[in-house]
Amino acid sequence: MSSYGMSFAHRKSRWMEGQGPSQDVVISSRIRLARNLKDYPFPPMMTEDKAREVLNLGCEISEALNHEGSAEYSWYPLGKLDSMERQVLIEKHLISPQLLRSAAISGVIISRDEAVSIMVNEEDHFRIQCLFSGMDLEAAWNLADRLDSDIAGHVTYAFDDEFGYLTTCPTNLGTGLRGSVMTHLPGLVLTEQLSRIVSGLSKVGAVVRGLYGEGSQAEGSLYQISNHVTLGHSESEIVDNLNSIVSEVVRRERSAREALLNRNRVKLEDRVYRAYGILTNARSIAASEAIELLSLVRLGVVLGILTHIPIAVFPELIVGTRRASIQQKAGAHLDSDQRDLQRANLIRKRLLAE
Amino acid sequence: MSSYGMSFAHRKSRWMEGQGPSQDVVISSRIRLARNLKDYPFPPMMTEDKAREVLNLGCEISEALNHEGSAEYSWYPLGKLDSMERQVLIEKHLISPQLLRSAAISGVIISRDEAVSIMVNEEDHFRIQCLFSGMDLEAAWNLADRLDSDIAGHVTYAFDDEFGYLTTCPTNLGTGLRGSVMTHLPGLVLTEQLSRIVSGLSKVGAVVRGLYGEGSQAEGSLYQISNHVTLGHSESEIVDNLNSIVSEVVRRERSAREALLNRNRVKLEDRVYRAYGILTNARSIAASEAIELLSLVRLGVVLGILTHIPIAVFPELIVGTRRASIQQKAGAHLDSDQRDLQRANLIRKRLLAE
Repeated sequence: MSSYGMSFAHRKSRWMEGQGPSQDVVISSRIRLARNLKDYPFPPMMTEDKAREVLNLGCEISEALNHEGSAEYSWYPLGKLDSMERQVLIEKHLISPQLLRSAAISGVIISRDEAVSIMVNEEDHFRIQCLFSGMDLEAAWNLADRLDSDIAGHVTYAFDDEFGYLTTCPTNLGTGLRGSVMTHLPGLVLTEQLSRIVSGLSKVGAVVRGLYGEGSQAEGSLYQISNHVTLGHSESEIVDNLNSIVSEVVRRERSAREALLNRNRVKLEDRVYRAYGILTNARSIAASEAIELLSLVRLGVVLGILTHIPIAVFPELIVGTRRASIQQKAGAHLDSDQRDLQRANLIRKRLLAE
Repeated sequence: MSSYGMSFAHRKSRWMEGQGPSQDVVISSRIRLARNLKDYPFPPMMTEDKAREVLNLGCEISEALNHEGSAEYSWYPLGKLDSMERQVLIEKHLISPQLLRSAAISGVIISRDEAVSIMVNEEDHFRIQCLFSGMDLEAAWNLADRLDSDIAGHVTYAFDDEFGYLTTCPTNLGTGLRGSVMTHLPGLVLTEQLSRIVSGLSKVGAVVRGLYGEGSQAEGSLYQISNHVTLGHSESEIVDNLNSIVSEVVRRERSAREALLNRNRVKLEDRVYRAYGILTNARSIAASEAIELLSLVRLGVVLGILTHIPIAVFPELIVGTRRASIQQKAGAHLDSDQRDLQRANLIRKRLLAE
């Protein structure tokens, strides 16, 4: 069910390149625009017929985005994807778990490099998402803005002169813009500064969440930092504000790492090397243990403790060893024990290949 | 203070060759004979003058054992060894901790291959010990018996026609013989059969102790099995009895290992490989953790899970990474953190050298 003849688990999203500005701390940057159609009720209030009309619009927009017959964008009605493929899309951050709730009447447009995914009939009619590697909200915003204009050429958005873009949930009202930056903060976790910083961030309009967004647990010291407010500021102001908030977090994470090295370099090296030793030798490993150890190894790589592993390995392994991705890669349904075995093999071979 | 120009920590005892009969389970076999002199009070009741006379006898016997001017045996008055060297001798099982209690008036004769150590003025005037690699009580007994006769040519033992050899502690009365076999029982530990087997052994006249004898904790699944009774049986009977007791333990350990493999081979392989991964990567490791991980790696080697590591590595590392040996090898006094670092380096380099 893929246009490219291979399942999503075998492809690497652009954000998974793992390189980019501030790559020592920042994994990826995402801009999301929430948009609704003027002449349709918001998704929670839509009849199934209306929802199908919006779904058809999604398919049309996908084709329209392919200028001059290019095949850059593909349209995936969720009903045509099996449950494993849907799950892989979630693991790759291309769709939200919420999109599955109404799988029969939802769909997603995905670009070839997977930097763009436009969800149709999630909480809003359209959710335009641009996801880049490293600290690059600017690039993500520019692309999202361009796509937004392109789509506006085909449909009429629900827009109010006073409130701006109208959205299902009032927290998205106005710009409908949410920027999210995925950060790797092992230094702040190990020096026990994180909870203080998280509560500080909430006071400057930012929200901190775990790897898979709202309600998900923080694993592997990976934290998503997003803007809270979407109303009363221009898009550029929101992006600039989030940029400076994240820059400050990056600065603090770097000094936490410095402090760890200065306080007890051997202890830190020991933790990094033990994590590497387990990952390159274990024959069975649970997802939760794997991500914690990968986090330590990534820290070791950016600090120059481990020198032979490219940083791009981490997003690849963090996504690639999750429940659905690992099964799709294996081409089989695996029980929990089999997944742990497969995960250990995958990580071991990938790390030893370097 | 060594006849061979290097400290004890740099030399390998014969028992540390690590090979021999039933080497998959048995590390080493020891025979110890307790002997006292007819015309001297037992050590606890001796004056210092008398103790010094016995000490001089020890020195004379050492020379007498060197037939035709060979330099096979050396004499070490404990007062001439520094505290680190004394500790290394304990770690190598060449002397007992008890010998240090009266260091000024005690000594030890040690053979060049360290298969023989004869303690003078420990609990008894003489304690003849022969220590061999693998399951070889027979060889140890034959050598101890020969040395016993040689020494009897120079001194008169305290011997009673009814009781046999007289000893300070009544539990050694009769033959004065104690056989001890150091076994590696990870299978029985992991399958939780050990405590049942230990209590069974006590009913057939055997005692089970940890790595460093009486009162020491069992570490790394290493257990010393010894005969309890020394009176009322001939030496051969005692040796034969201990031999068959240990053979039965070996049989049970082997079936426990089989059971572990059959029950969940991946789980066992995973444990072995993780231990190997940590030992070949850690930058700091405590003695207690090191011995537990070495135990798992040794199990992996004898089960053919790890194929490139010679079994002789284990006694070398188990002794060589202990507190005093590690400092004597480093040629410096090290604090606890420094020892952990040195220990990790030593193990890592040794295992990676194979």
